[in-house]
Amino acid sequence: MADLNVTERIADDLPLATAAGVADDFPASATVGVSGFGSVGYPKAVPEAIAQSSRDFGLTIASGGSVGKEIDTDLVEAGAVERRFPYQSRSASRAAANSGELAYHDRHISRFSDEVEFGRTADLDVAVVEAVAVGHDWLIPSTSLGHTAAFVDSADRLIVEINESQPLALQQLHDIYRRNAPPHREPLPLRSPGGRIGSSEISFDSGKLEAVVRTNRRDTPYVFRDPSDTDRKIASNLADFLATEVEHNPVLSEVINLQFGVGSLGNALMGAIANTDFGSREVNYFGEVIQDGLLDMLDEGKLNVASATSLAFSEEGQERFFENIDQYLEDVVLRPASISNNPTLADRFGIVAVNSALEIDIYGHVNSTHVNGSKAINGIGGSGDFNRNAAVPIVALPSTAKGGDLSRVVPMVPHVDHTEHDISVVVTEQGVADLRGKSPRERAKLLIQNCAHPSFRDDLTEYFEDARAEGGHIPHDLDQVFDWQN
Amino acid sequence: MADLNVTERIADDLPLATAAGVADDFPASATVGVSGFGSVGYPKAVPEAIAQSSRDFGLTIASGGSVGKEIDTDLVEAGAVERRFPYQSRSASRAAANSGELAYHDRHISRFSDEVEFGRTADLDVAVVEAVAVGHDWLIPSTSLGHTAAFVDSADRLIVEINESQPLALQQLHDIYRRNAPPHREPLPLRSPGGRIGSSEISFDSGKLEAVVRTNRRDTPYVFRDPSDTDRKIASNLADFLATEVEHNPVLSEVINLQFGVGSLGNALMGAIANTDFGSREVNYFGEVIQDGLLDMLDEGKLNVASATSLAFSEEGQERFFENIDQYLEDVVLRPASISNNPTLADRFGIVAVNSALEIDIYGHVNSTHVNGSKAINGIGGSGDFNRNAAVPIVALPSTAKGGDLSRVVPMVPHVDHTEHDISVVVTEQGVADLRGKSPRERAKLLIQNCAHPSFRDDLTEYFEDARAEGGHIPHDLDQVFDWQN
Repeated sequence: MADLNVTERIADDLPLATAAGVADDFPASATVGVSGFGSVGYPKAVPEAIAQSSRDFGLTIASGGSVGKEIDTDLVEAGAVERRFPYQSRSASRAAANSGELAYHDRHISRFSDEVEFGRTADLDVAVVEAVAVGHDWLIPSTSLGHTAAFVDSADRLIVEINESQPLALQQLHDIYRRNAPPHREPLPLRSPGGRIGSSEISFDSGKLEAVVRTNRRDTPYVFRDPSDTDRKIASNLADFLATEVEHNPVLSEVINLQFGVGSLGNALMGAIANTDFGSREVNYFGEVIQDGLLDMLDEGKLNVASATSLAFSEEGQERFFENIDQYLEDVVLRPASISNNPTLADRFGIVAVNSALEIDIYGHVNSTHVNGSKAINGIGGSGDFNRNAAVPIVALPSTAKGGDLSRVVPMVPHVDHTEHDISVVVTEQGVADLRGKSPRERAKLLIQNCAHPSFRDDLTEYFEDARAEGGHIPHDLDQVFDWQN
Repeated sequence: MADLNVTERIADDLPLATAAGVADDFPASATVGVSGFGSVGYPKAVPEAIAQSSRDFGLTIASGGSVGKEIDTDLVEAGAVERRFPYQSRSASRAAANSGELAYHDRHISRFSDEVEFGRTADLDVAVVEAVAVGHDWLIPSTSLGHTAAFVDSADRLIVEINESQPLALQQLHDIYRRNAPPHREPLPLRSPGGRIGSSEISFDSGKLEAVVRTNRRDTPYVFRDPSDTDRKIASNLADFLATEVEHNPVLSEVINLQFGVGSLGNALMGAIANTDFGSREVNYFGEVIQDGLLDMLDEGKLNVASATSLAFSEEGQERFFENIDQYLEDVVLRPASISNNPTLADRFGIVAVNSALEIDIYGHVNSTHVNGSKAINGIGGSGDFNRNAAVPIVALPSTAKGGDLSRVVPMVPHVDHTEHDISVVVTEQGVADLRGKSPRERAKLLIQNCAHPSFRDDLTEYFEDARAEGGHIPHDLDQVFDWQN
């Protein structure tokens, strides 16, 4: 058991090894659980050594969420990965999933710990985990928690990478709460976004620990593009909507608990929120990743608490956070993804969830993952966890793609990640559609008028009117519905 | 406050009224919350009187779930309903939704209480509630709980129908637990499917009570058809799957907590489960409706506890239950739909959820609600609540429709209620496809080989192979994907 101020990275008498040595002994067709979420806190040296090995591997890799190049680029390009869960976001893994070389199953983040630990989705042989410190029967993870605790519990063997570039102070961010297996699961006791109910370390059976590898390499940082005019207009429409909503929604009368999706748009949206006047309301972030935009809000005192499972910063953000980590220790909490994304907490805290999408149809079904219904981009990640269970689920996206040539508001999305039963509000740079309580036909009119780009409104209206003439609760003409997909 | 053994149906000095009198004063464009779920426990006399009134009405009606003919047939056919949430299941309301005369918004059952009470979906003017007893500031609901407590809380005015055909003993089934509004919601304290955390009555501000109407009419009973050969084969395949699953799934090692969808197939599946040997495991039902099949299991001692929000029996089942109600009081619990369908409880209890569908596509997306993507049947009901959050989500359906002319396994469903991220196992009369951990291409092969009818397998395989030649994580040819829809 670690105390709360571990100063030694590796306890005495642990089985130190080199990454190359671990790779030499690594089982060729293992099912592997790796740490990592939001492209940070993932093991680097062992995957790289396996990728560089002359041996043939056919691994199944389960992660928390997205991981960096050593796994989803190098290992995948080496042909060493046969199967991958529950999320990926790099071009190599995406290409392999789309060609069929990689068997990829894209799952809700909140449920994946259970699916591995109790759900018969993957039977883990080995957990490979990045940590800032390790003892005989405990380890302290680094910049993300993801599904690491569940993987360590369920794997037969454990390999730990101690990354000396990750500050030991990270231990003070961690709140690792473990749940019993159903049906003996306890009510989740977290009562506020900043509450603490767990510990800073993951315990394990000491017999599992096979190797400890020293590393010293920063996480692959995020690269955020500068906000575009469209991003800024979306952010401004969202801020306007929220400024009105908080005045009328009883759930938001004292506290606003926000979640934003990952990426450049999400980062831009956080910026707009920071500049919105919510009166005396406390503002918290309760999501899956903490991005640069939140640091500004914390620094300016506009954000009370930020809770997530990953510190997904840009390179500048990473440096800024690490250099000033002491000032963030009280306001930033990292949790396992089964807690950060837990449906009951999104519900309990009355989350305002803002997630992006590839496209939305005129009736409010959302495609977050597959271009033309076929080509995987990343994965659903936590968007389903938050959208379904939030008090105010909001989808934010530009109205067009490809420089304005394609409408992102379409007659029917060819892949549905979020259903008409889940989404309440849609925001584009054109405006806001509040779909609450609206029938499909009413939704179509609102989405076309308020959210579609003016250059596509006539065609969308024509589709809708033609289909409506044929009747139906959700009027569609299946013969022409996908003429909009290119 | 009621005690646990109320014997008087109507307290002294309450404002008794006739249904016709209530209808005369009823606001013409009110937003109305009615009791009722699973077509039972809904108000009968007041809706009937409004339907028979010579006045014009344009009502918004929110219910728990499905209600009987007085509302979704008589009122709808009288043209008195403009808007309807969150579920309907009668031919008149369905026709009105499909013609566009009725603005219908189909929502997840678990979330609808909140959407009305805190979520700005509907601002209730009046709650019209069937009860077995009423006092100055409390009432005891009848055969279903649904969203009644939330509606009573949020409506400005309250009208109570006291139905003397409903036994007073129903009070002992009720476990009405109310939750705080987010973000001050407490962890839900229910620790087992049969646990009790609430009270038998709904409290209200005594100033709200405008009228009490005496009635004496049974609920519209369910009519279950006899199980077909296909139903029996689906049930037998499901039972075989479960018999193996319980041996390997740690969540099912001691207790099996089952949920089944509503209807004849669900009722037949319960029968098959009753005849399956689960060893020494305790079997509980934790779902939204209690149907006839569960009474057999309770009588035979094969079921420990049945928890739901509605007693949706056939006429025979209703009589059998009411005549022997004393023997069921300890083993049957009724809860508000926000509890019976709560995501965190489906997760906590490790539910095995079995829900039907209209059709499923070869990649595992499920359509439960819209024929050809357009024509509404009933609604999603609680299937999304259970499918997404269950330990083992199972979709059970026949492989064909229209006497074998149509395949229910199709290339792409034209409406998605449950996504590829939600479903684990599919059962038809042909067999079982265990999709856990499988890529879309692997799922396609399993679903075509194990679940599709043999007469459609070649065509489905041809579609899949053609699409696969074009690549993509979920191979599709959008030009021909809906050629399967008729």
